[in-house]
Amino acid sequence: MKSITSRDNPLYKEFKQLATSSQARRKAGRTLLDGVHLCEAYFQHLGAPEYCIVAESSLNHAEVAAVLAQSEQQRTQCICLPDALYKALSQVEHGVGVMFIIATPTPEFPSALAASSVVLDNLQDPGNLGSILRSAAAAGIQNVFCSPGTAFAWSPKVMRAGMGAHFLLNIFENVDLPALLSNAKIPVLATSSHTRQTIYQSNLNQEVVWLFGHEGQGVSPELMSMATSTVTIPQQAAIESLNVAASAAICFFEQVRQQLATKTQ
Amino acid sequence: MKSITSRDNPLYKEFKQLATSSQARRKAGRTLLDGVHLCEAYFQHLGAPEYCIVAESSLNHAEVAAVLAQSEQQRTQCICLPDALYKALSQVEHGVGVMFIIATPTPEFPSALAASSVVLDNLQDPGNLGSILRSAAAAGIQNVFCSPGTAFAWSPKVMRAGMGAHFLLNIFENVDLPALLSNAKIPVLATSSHTRQTIYQSNLNQEVVWLFGHEGQGVSPELMSMATSTVTIPQQAAIESLNVAASAAICFFEQVRQQLATKTQ
Repeated sequence: MKSITSRDNPLYKEFKQLATSSQARRKAGRTLLDGVHLCEAYFQHLGAPEYCIVAESSLNHAEVAAVLAQSEQQRTQCICLPDALYKALSQVEHGVGVMFIIATPTPEFPSALAASSVVLDNLQDPGNLGSILRSAAAAGIQNVFCSPGTAFAWSPKVMRAGMGAHFLLNIFENVDLPALLSNAKIPVLATSSHTRQTIYQSNLNQEVVWLFGHEGQGVSPELMSMATSTVTIPQQAAIESLNVAASAAICFFEQVRQQLATKTQ
Repeated sequence: MKSITSRDNPLYKEFKQLATSSQARRKAGRTLLDGVHLCEAYFQHLGAPEYCIVAESSLNHAEVAAVLAQSEQQRTQCICLPDALYKALSQVEHGVGVMFIIATPTPEFPSALAASSVVLDNLQDPGNLGSILRSAAAAGIQNVFCSPGTAFAWSPKVMRAGMGAHFLLNIFENVDLPALLSNAKIPVLATSSHTRQTIYQSNLNQEVVWLFGHEGQGVSPELMSMATSTVTIPQQAAIESLNVAASAAICFFEQVRQQLATKTQ
C-alpha cells in the first residue's frame, strides 16, 4: 500500500478533480465509489477497481480492512491518505473511510430497443434517478437510457441513492432518445394522467419500454408522441400526482406481478 | 396589503424564525408554504392561511397575483416584502415569490387504529417522507403516524416533496408507536426481505396498517415484533433492496389494485 501525504501529489490532485467535478468525471470516464457498501457491490458484480483509497484512521475498521485485503489480493493499487486529505475527497458524512476509483462501465449500445428498458427524458433529481435505477435493477430491468439533460448517473449522489444498482444495469447516457424510440421493437409506455387505460389493464407480461420525464414537466411532447400507448396509475382525484420515482417503482413492479402471475398459473 | 421594509420589524423577525428554525416551527405550531403550487393546494383543501407574503418583484406575476387576490378576498393579512427580505425567508431556488404562513393542522388522534394508515419509525430523509405522503394521499390512505425520530413532516423540504399531499392527510407526529400498534384493530404489515409471503399473495382488499422504518436499519425489532405479518416485494436476488419510498408506493398501489379488482368484478 502506498501513502500519499501531500495535497500537491499529482495522483491526489487527479482524485480531487474526480471527486469535485462532474465534468472531470465525464471527461475521464471515471468515477468514485464512496463507502463500504458500494465497494463491496462493485467487487461482487464487476471485479477489481483501479484504485482503493483508505483513510488512515479507518485502517483498523473491520469492514474497511476486508475491502482493503480483497483489493490487495486482486492487485489493485491501494492508497492510504491522512484523514484531512481523505475528507476532501469524500462527500459522505460519517462515512467509514474507504473509496474506489473505477472506470465508468461502457456497455455496448444495442442495435435496437428489444428488451425491457427505462428511458429517462430530462430527469433532474439525483435522488430520483438513483431510486429509479435501484427499482429497475430490483425488478430485473437491465437497460437504462438517459437523455442529454438527465442527471449524470455516475455522480456520487446518484450512486449513493442507487445502492449498487448501477453495477447490475447497462446505463447509456447522452442518448438521442427520438432516434432510439424510433427503433423500438417492443411497446413504449408512458404514464399520463390524461388517459383512462390503467397499468392494471395493460398487458405487461411482455418486454416493454418505460418512458419517464422531467419532475415538473413530464415527458416532452415530441417523445410523448412516440409512445405506443399512455397508461395511468389510478389515483385519488384530489391529488393526482406521484413522485416520478414512486411512479416508476409502481410500474416496474406491476410488470413483475403480471410476470409472476403467469409463471404460477 | 401591508409593506414591511425593515429586518427589525417584529412580525418579519417572527417569519424569519419560522423560516429558519425547525424548532421554532414545532414550538409555534406554525409553518411556511413556499410557492404557488402549495398555496393553491392549501386554498383548495384547507382554506385561508394566516398570512400571505409576496416578494415585491412578483406582484405582477399572474399566478402570484391570483393567489394574492384570493387571499385578500378571504381577509387574510397580506404582506409585501422587498426582494432581499423575501429571499431570506424562502428556501426555493428560482421560486416565484409567494408564501403562506399557516397553523400546522392538528387532527384529532383516533381512539384506535382502525382505518388504513402509514406508520413511520425513524424515517430520516425529508425527500422520502414527502414522497411517501404523496403516494399515501394518491392511494387514498388518510392517516400517517410518525415516531419521535422521524423527519418533521411540516418542514419546507418535506412539504415541497409532498406537493400538497399534507393537506389531504391526518398527520400525527411524535407518536408513541408501540402504544399505537398495541391498539390496532386491523392487520399491521411490515415489509421484510426475510419472509416468503409476497404482497401479491396477501389480502390487501381490506384496511391495513403499513409499517416502514429507517432507511438503513429498517423497522426497529420492538415494532417489527408487533406486526401482524411480514410481507415481501419479490426482487432480483442480486440486489434485494428498494428505496423505502419506492417500497411504500409499490405496497400502497398493490392495495389500490386489489381494491379496484374487487370493484370491477
